Amino acid sequence: MIRFECDYGEGAAEPVLELLQKTNREQTLGYGTDDYCAQAAALIRTLCGVPEAGVHFFVGATQANFTVIDAALKPWQGVLCADSGHIHVHETGAVEATGHKCLALPGVQGKITADQVRQACRDHWASDSHEHTVQPAMVYISNPTEDGTLYSLAELEAMSAACRECGLLLFVDGARMAYGLTSPANDLTLKDYGRLCDVFYLGGTKCGALFGEAVVIPNAALNRDFRYAIKQHGAMLAKGRLLGLQFLALLNGEDGTGCSPYFQLAARANRLALRIRAAFEAQGCPMLFDSPTNQQFPILPDAWLDVLNRRYATTFTAKPDADHTAVRFCTSWATREEDVEALLKDLADLAGARNTETN
Amino acid sequence: MIRFECDYGEGAAEPVLELLQKTNREQTLGYGTDDYCAQAAALIRTLCGVPEAGVHFFVGATQANFTVIDAALKPWQGVLCADSGHIHVHETGAVEATGHKCLALPGVQGKITADQVRQACRDHWASDSHEHTVQPAMVYISNPTEDGTLYSLAELEAMSAACRECGLLLFVDGARMAYGLTSPANDLTLKDYGRLCDVFYLGGTKCGALFGEAVVIPNAALNRDFRYAIKQHGAMLAKGRLLGLQFLALLNGEDGTGCSPYFQLAARANRLALRIRAAFEAQGCPMLFDSPTNQQFPILPDAWLDVLNRRYATTFTAKPDADHTAVRFCTSWATREEDVEALLKDLADLAGARNTETN
Amino acid sequence: MIRFECDYGEGAAEPVLELLQKTNREQTLGYGTDDYCAQAAALIRTLCGVPEAGVHFFVGATQANFTVIDAALKPWQGVLCADSGHIHVHETGAVEATGHKCLALPGVQGKITADQVRQACRDHWASDSHEHTVQPAMVYISNPTEDGTLYSLAELEAMSAACRECGLLLFVDGARMAYGLTSPANDLTLKDYGRLCDVFYLGGTKCGALFGEAVVIPNAALNRDFRYAIKQHGAMLAKGRLLGLQFLALLNGEDGTGCSPYFQLAARANRLALRIRAAFEAQGCPMLFDSPTNQQFPILPDAWLDVLNRRYATTFTAKPDADHTAVRFCTSWATREEDVEALLKDLADLAGARNTETN
Amino acid sequence: MIRFECDYGEGAAEPVLELLQKTNREQTLGYGTDDYCAQAAALIRTLCGVPEAGVHFFVGATQANFTVIDAALKPWQGVLCADSGHIHVHETGAVEATGHKCLALPGVQGKITADQVRQACRDHWASDSHEHTVQPAMVYISNPTEDGTLYSLAELEAMSAACRECGLLLFVDGARMAYGLTSPANDLTLKDYGRLCDVFYLGGTKCGALFGEAVVIPNAALNRDFRYAIKQHGAMLAKGRLLGLQFLALLNGEDGTGCSPYFQLAARANRLALRIRAAFEAQGCPMLFDSPTNQQFPILPDAWLDVLNRRYATTFTAKPDADHTAVRFCTSWATREEDVEALLKDLADLAGARNTETN
Repeated sequence: MIRFECDYGEGAAEPVLELLQKTNREQTLGYGTDDYCAQAAALIRTLCGVPEAGVHFFVGATQANFTVIDAALKPWQGVLCADSGHIHVHETGAVEATGHKCLALPGVQGKITADQVRQACRDHWASDSHEHTVQPAMVYISNPTEDGTLYSLAELEAMSAACRECGLLLFVDGARMAYGLTSPANDLTLKDYGRLCDVFYLGGTKCGALFGEAVVIPNAALNRDFRYAIKQHGAMLAKGRLLGLQFLALLNGEDGTGCSPYFQLAARANRLALRIRAAFEAQGCPMLFDSPTNQQFPILPDAWLDVLNRRYATTFTAKPDADHTAVRFCTSWATREEDVEALLKDLADLAGARNTETN
Repeated sequence: MIRFECDYGEGAAEPVLELLQKTNREQTLGYGTDDYCAQAAALIRTLCGVPEAGVHFFVGATQANFTVIDAALKPWQGVLCADSGHIHVHETGAVEATGHKCLALPGVQGKITADQVRQACRDHWASDSHEHTVQPAMVYISNPTEDGTLYSLAELEAMSAACRECGLLLFVDGARMAYGLTSPANDLTLKDYGRLCDVFYLGGTKCGALFGEAVVIPNAALNRDFRYAIKQHGAMLAKGRLLGLQFLALLNGEDGTGCSPYFQLAARANRLALRIRAAFEAQGCPMLFDSPTNQQFPILPDAWLDVLNRRYATTFTAKPDADHTAVRFCTSWATREEDVEALLKDLADLAGARNTETN
Repeated sequence: MIRFECDYGEGAAEPVLELLQKTNREQTLGYGTDDYCAQAAALIRTLCGVPEAGVHFFVGATQANFTVIDAALKPWQGVLCADSGHIHVHETGAVEATGHKCLALPGVQGKITADQVRQACRDHWASDSHEHTVQPAMVYISNPTEDGTLYSLAELEAMSAACRECGLLLFVDGARMAYGLTSPANDLTLKDYGRLCDVFYLGGTKCGALFGEAVVIPNAALNRDFRYAIKQHGAMLAKGRLLGLQFLALLNGEDGTGCSPYFQLAARANRLALRIRAAFEAQGCPMLFDSPTNQQFPILPDAWLDVLNRRYATTFTAKPDADHTAVRFCTSWATREEDVEALLKDLADLAGARNTETN
Repeated sequence: MIRFECDYGEGAAEPVLELLQKTNREQTLGYGTDDYCAQAAALIRTLCGVPEAGVHFFVGATQANFTVIDAALKPWQGVLCADSGHIHVHETGAVEATGHKCLALPGVQGKITADQVRQACRDHWASDSHEHTVQPAMVYISNPTEDGTLYSLAELEAMSAACRECGLLLFVDGARMAYGLTSPANDLTLKDYGRLCDVFYLGGTKCGALFGEAVVIPNAALNRDFRYAIKQHGAMLAKGRLLGLQFLALLNGEDGTGCSPYFQLAARANRLALRIRAAFEAQGCPMLFDSPTNQQFPILPDAWLDVLNRRYATTFTAKPDADHTAVRFCTSWATREEDVEALLKDLADLAGARNTETN
């Protein structure tokens, strides 16, 4: 079975394992207070242009999401998000478990707009009974989104402006940050995130690390005492250096040009994903979402899917009609060129068989 | 600086790293549903004599503690523990953050007794206003305790009997399980835990893994739907196989005789710790706690501590009088023999100097 | 100003005040353990045909809602409800504050169906990643709904059957129970609720009491230890007898024929509400919702609303187009006949003026 | 049975019932936004000397306690209190249910000191691992305490100064505020509370109201958006005016001299309580606590208690030795003079019988 169903099916990029190996017997302080974490945080601050920001390393994204949200909000405040937002639909109610409601807005291709956010705030504050409803206090977006789509610089600037106008915090889930920044469609930089967000993260788990998300908090008020929140939510890794080390390995030599493994690996994965997209489109399969990143969602005839399922693992996404299914093909830093080639060949064979039949 | 302040200052035992390396590019399912986790769970079930038990892997102990407690208790129920219990004093209120009160009982050397538990339950149910107080529903103990001391088989059997009489669940925090089971003072086996507890865990983080705790749940009702709890608390590692693999490496070849790295490494650490203890006692330093495991708490003259502090990192524990301080010396799977030798020599020098002075 | 904007604008029906007055200096036990609460609970059990059920008195409905839900659910479970459900939109996230997600289904006129519930459960359990989503475990409906509409006996039976099939608890918010049971459109009885629900309540606040909701719990497992939940959520009134006394006064003499003040007062309020509805409809104003109970939602020309606003308080509900507004007119046990007459006359005048203009 | 076991065994002082009766059919806005609440709040602000403070009415004290604490604290913060504090021992873990730990300090006669608070903060911040422990952020005291004892002006000033030094909020539970302010031992005024506290309340439930606590919040930051917290915790009474009206009735005519029913009724209850104390002391019964307020805790020979139990309800408090028991005698605004006389006579008879025996 060749696995395209997710981008966390393998271990770690080799430089990561090598650095863990090399430093294995060194003795350091625990809980992320070691020098490797300090170095990784300093590098990330520089890359994001936020010399004063807090940088905190988490093992996973769900953990990062609810810890940030819980630390940021008053008990009666909620978080605006797309109705497809990961926190709303795929984290077993982790945000609600900390007491906060996800205020879902209808998304388009996984995205919400600055206007939707402004309207939601206007509606809240205009209501006579606003104290009877959850107060919006934060916007959560993922970039790339859960659908693989991207917010542009203009969109992120508009969202940030709306948030600042409305007194909302802006939180960007960057679990697939590297795939976004290296997409041909991207016009954002890490410095844009640093400038426009209150908090965001650079995902490691899905881009070359064994695990790890680097949460960056330019907002000083939110950063205050944040380490208590990390510990309380069980997110303070005893051997915290494992996180700093992995980001040092991934961002090794990074100077803002994308030369480090983190970006090189993601760019390669995007290229492979776009080859898969092009191949499906060439055979007449439309895409469920218009994604320029490592997740692709072709809509296939069910007969083709039955054949492909024998050899390739994908994720069911939607059933747009009785005879077609949309599935997710995911590439990653670890995807092998030959696996993509095999898929493309099998797809060509399926299309060839169809053409023969119809002739 | 030679570090004795904790047992999580290094990376992982070599077999762990080797297995991660060897399997790195394999593709597996995520979230702990892979074959390595299944194999590790099966092995642990066998070793604990609980063929039907749930086995779930966590990254860290705090996370495991509050997830288990939150999953087990009704909202108005609390957990009885020693006043030195890790959940009560050292997890930033993680248990309370899930809504549950720690009902602390005065411990002796980190331990509480079956009689204390019975009395607490009697007091609760005898009160006319019991509905106005938190209902005790679980007992949490650590073994080894936070003070390095051990519950004996007789004590664990008595505690288990008290819990079953009173309708309480018994939860054993085994963050240092390997050090306990391999202590010369120990008379417990993993099968005893399997037989006597509702839930317990085998700690990996402090005994040879990069990270990881294997939670075993013999109680079927508690195990039901437990994976939802794991996900909700951000504790479901995307690359879950990393946890299964580490326990497979640590327990490799284990047949109940303690032949696997997990137990061999811990036994060695205990031996080194007991050499340190013997050396301090030989120089007239009493122990704050009577620990037969890898944590030792000598009470030192402050003048000696000042000297030792220049070269050795330890953890401040107590200040029993104006001129003495108790600190923790921790050994681990990673402790180097030569570092212990150096400490013993420096200690002998300090004692020699004192004897010279006093002569 | 004549107030039609809600059904909690006055104090209490006179029999309630009289009984409070008459018993004022009696000494009783606190916290709902007095004889008046016992008598009221016994009467309610009889009326509902559930001789073993728990009956617990709450001060208010929001408090009752989240206490019931929190007591009933495991941490990872959520509650299915209409997207207009009070718990979802009008309680400041009280349910989420206890850690549970409201799983909103699209309602029609405030109602959801047994089929929607079955489908939601099927979707949940069919998903490979169901452990990554909130597990549905309860259905919450209001009857009458927030829109004034009613579930029929057939609908409640279907919902109850769906819940039992799917392993869900059924919870009916009866804040306006009396208005529902006395509506000309109603075919349900209290015994139907007792037979079909796991938990439901008879609202007092909106039907003649100063305050109070009588929560009935036929489900024995849910009722166990429920008083702890009440106390923990600050819902155990010190002078609990105030609640028992009020329900005794309201249900005085009730034999299932609706002869007590509780039902007589509600029936009268429904009659007044339906007169208002008929008057608006006679003037060509459609209703936003097809309500047979004490809440009516006419869609008015804005010009009329401007005039009516000078004398009558109503609640803004929707703005269906640029020139029309839907508002809520609420009657209650306390509504004065002459206030309704005045409204009807003013409405006739407005219509007369229009007819004159258009002639 | 004559009931001395609590101060909430009767209904309400007559002026309260009369005002509720008189205003019963008036129509007002709901949820505490009516004029009566506004008037009561204005009067309380004046009496407390805090013209800008928030004043919010709650139905009960537990509800007020956890709502205030939850609104005030960050998730990782806890509340320092006496180990006998109501929030710590008698509210079914309501504070923990909102996620916050009670940090209990050993009290003396129900009181803690400014020095204890300072020390707790010093210990927290001095620890290397303070992020692993709950951060103290508020001090909760009750005045009168749960033991009937009083903080003096000097003690409250010292506590307030300690809190301001340490960055803690000061919260005074005033469930029995009226009994404290009218005790012969008292040297505090409402204006002192207004000046020294961040938040405190004037209890109504135990002093003449059917129910109700008036929470005063001089701290503007804490008051911001506080009504959301009230609603979320189910504490926003639909007919909120019932609370305003009761405080208007109780504080009617109050000019700071204690002339209103609130203070007159409490002063009378204190006098009756002190007569009970004096009678027990005259017969050689010591007091468990040195209380100058409406709760008295004599230590009785068990033989006497057996006799008294036949006629008088009291609350068991402690068993200081095998032959003696301490119970609580509570007077209240409703205590009848003749009931106290009866008790005193029965006590004299018991003592007389003893003297006869021993002669």
